[in-house]
Amino acid sequence: MSRIIAGIDIGGTKIAAAVASPDGRIIAKQTFPTEVEKGPHEILERAMNIVGELAREAPGDLTAVGVGCAGPLDVVRGLILSPPNLPGWDEFPLVELLKQRFGVPVVLENDANAAALGEQRFGAGRGFENLVYITISTGIGGGVIVDGRIVRGVGSGAGEVGHMTILPDGPVCGCGGRGCLETLCSGTAIARRAREAIGQGAQSVLSVYFSNGPEGITAARVAEAARSGDRFAGEIWSETIKYLALGIGNIIATLAPEAIIFGGGVAMAGEQLLAPLRQRLIEQVKMAPVKDIRLLQAGLGSESGLYGAIALVADARRDKA
Amino acid sequence: MSRIIAGIDIGGTKIAAAVASPDGRIIAKQTFPTEVEKGPHEILERAMNIVGELAREAPGDLTAVGVGCAGPLDVVRGLILSPPNLPGWDEFPLVELLKQRFGVPVVLENDANAAALGEQRFGAGRGFENLVYITISTGIGGGVIVDGRIVRGVGSGAGEVGHMTILPDGPVCGCGGRGCLETLCSGTAIARRAREAIGQGAQSVLSVYFSNGPEGITAARVAEAARSGDRFAGEIWSETIKYLALGIGNIIATLAPEAIIFGGGVAMAGEQLLAPLRQRLIEQVKMAPVKDIRLLQAGLGSESGLYGAIALVADARRDKA
Repeated sequence: MSRIIAGIDIGGTKIAAAVASPDGRIIAKQTFPTEVEKGPHEILERAMNIVGELAREAPGDLTAVGVGCAGPLDVVRGLILSPPNLPGWDEFPLVELLKQRFGVPVVLENDANAAALGEQRFGAGRGFENLVYITISTGIGGGVIVDGRIVRGVGSGAGEVGHMTILPDGPVCGCGGRGCLETLCSGTAIARRAREAIGQGAQSVLSVYFSNGPEGITAARVAEAARSGDRFAGEIWSETIKYLALGIGNIIATLAPEAIIFGGGVAMAGEQLLAPLRQRLIEQVKMAPVKDIRLLQAGLGSESGLYGAIALVADARRDKA
Repeated sequence: MSRIIAGIDIGGTKIAAAVASPDGRIIAKQTFPTEVEKGPHEILERAMNIVGELAREAPGDLTAVGVGCAGPLDVVRGLILSPPNLPGWDEFPLVELLKQRFGVPVVLENDANAAALGEQRFGAGRGFENLVYITISTGIGGGVIVDGRIVRGVGSGAGEVGHMTILPDGPVCGCGGRGCLETLCSGTAIARRAREAIGQGAQSVLSVYFSNGPEGITAARVAEAARSGDRFAGEIWSETIKYLALGIGNIIATLAPEAIIFGGGVAMAGEQLLAPLRQRLIEQVKMAPVKDIRLLQAGLGSESGLYGAIALVADARRDKA
């Protein structure tokens, strides 16, 4: 029987699982809601059952499992450490339980790092050995790849690009800091800024969404209104790009990666986000050739993390002469 | 005859050369002024003669030359590209000329990257595979080491940490940008801020140095006055640390390196700089364990670059089990 590998991507709202050939081609996959209220053991049991079913479908001899999970986590001990999005997963021995079930090596990585690797191996980052992946959705996370490998950093602190301080006196962040990139450019932050201004009487097509409560205004609607020419929404969008350029400029000054890849809901705006961001970076950054640094939308959509989980255990086959 | 290697560090004010054993222990070294007005050919001729003399002293069979040089430069083509500190070195074929003279392999690296490697192999960074080196003197430069290797980045743009935008509306920088870290925290910037305020009547012991012209106030004197309890100088110093913490915080958010090593004249202040910087980072950075990231003064003083040039061609002998 041929060999197969499995990948699992565990997030706060959904879990994706797949089996793949040893070089990472996905054979079968399935996505299901996390249902966090069921707690880690029941959730993992379901995920493992699904991997088992996919493996029987494949079919093949399962030889390794890669798993990406919302952090913080301890990749060395294989433990999940109280992620805000996975209540009850405190010191949860994810790796040990997967090993017991499948009797194969298990590799754990935090979800943003896994997504970075997924994009590098199978997505928009193919062909680049040095890249930074940034996901802009409810929050802002990221992963750094240098020489084709994930950079974890002390305490797995690398890639926490959402927590660069952009405005020292800016809004308080969930991390406890102030003025983090996340407080200015996440989907949550974009919606918040629009809601506040419209609540104070700013004129915009977005006002209609506000009539049933401020939560009717979302980052996606701000982007849409900006595209349609709404001046207020355009200003919110431009301000977002101004702040984002400061964060991306810091990354370029530190690493000058070949590519910076944008995932998450806000990045679905594609060139509406990337074109003015590129322009702004060209004006702002003088010590690196910004034009030679690719700013790209993620190529795997919501599956960057799943492909990353596969990539964690796929044969590299990237040895060089 | 035993084998030896040579290293040359070429800066705008001085050149250092050394010969060393293949594992990097320096046997003999010499430093001499650059005398930039003599132009690249005469300067290089002198440097090569000195390497020749050192090699005869050693004695040994010269097998490789490593050279660090002020950038910008092209490591692939082995060319120096008009460094501001080395007028006339445009497209200067440094590597080719060294190869012709010594008939051995030559490795070129920019001086800040070389200094980072020097500190990692022989200085304060020994034992760390992931570190960032920052030199704070006239300007601010840096080098990034990941997995024991220099990260060059696109267009050799990695490690240009002096050009992170810290204050978007701040002072104009030599690079053409605004509010770069260098415009706020370099020795030049520290002196400039002090001169301006004292010129406007600020009260300080520094005023005596101002009496013969503003250039009497230097960053070293600001540091000294701050140490002696001068309130004005203390404020300038604290402000410098506030800005520096924003830059270092960005680096930590991106890479969370094991160590950040500070060289250059301003870093001679040692713990006067590092202790409050650590404190500020602990308050500011929440998503990485700042206490586990070492902030260290460079261990090789003005010779980080020379040791780095040696390290470029020294046997790594760092293979792991």
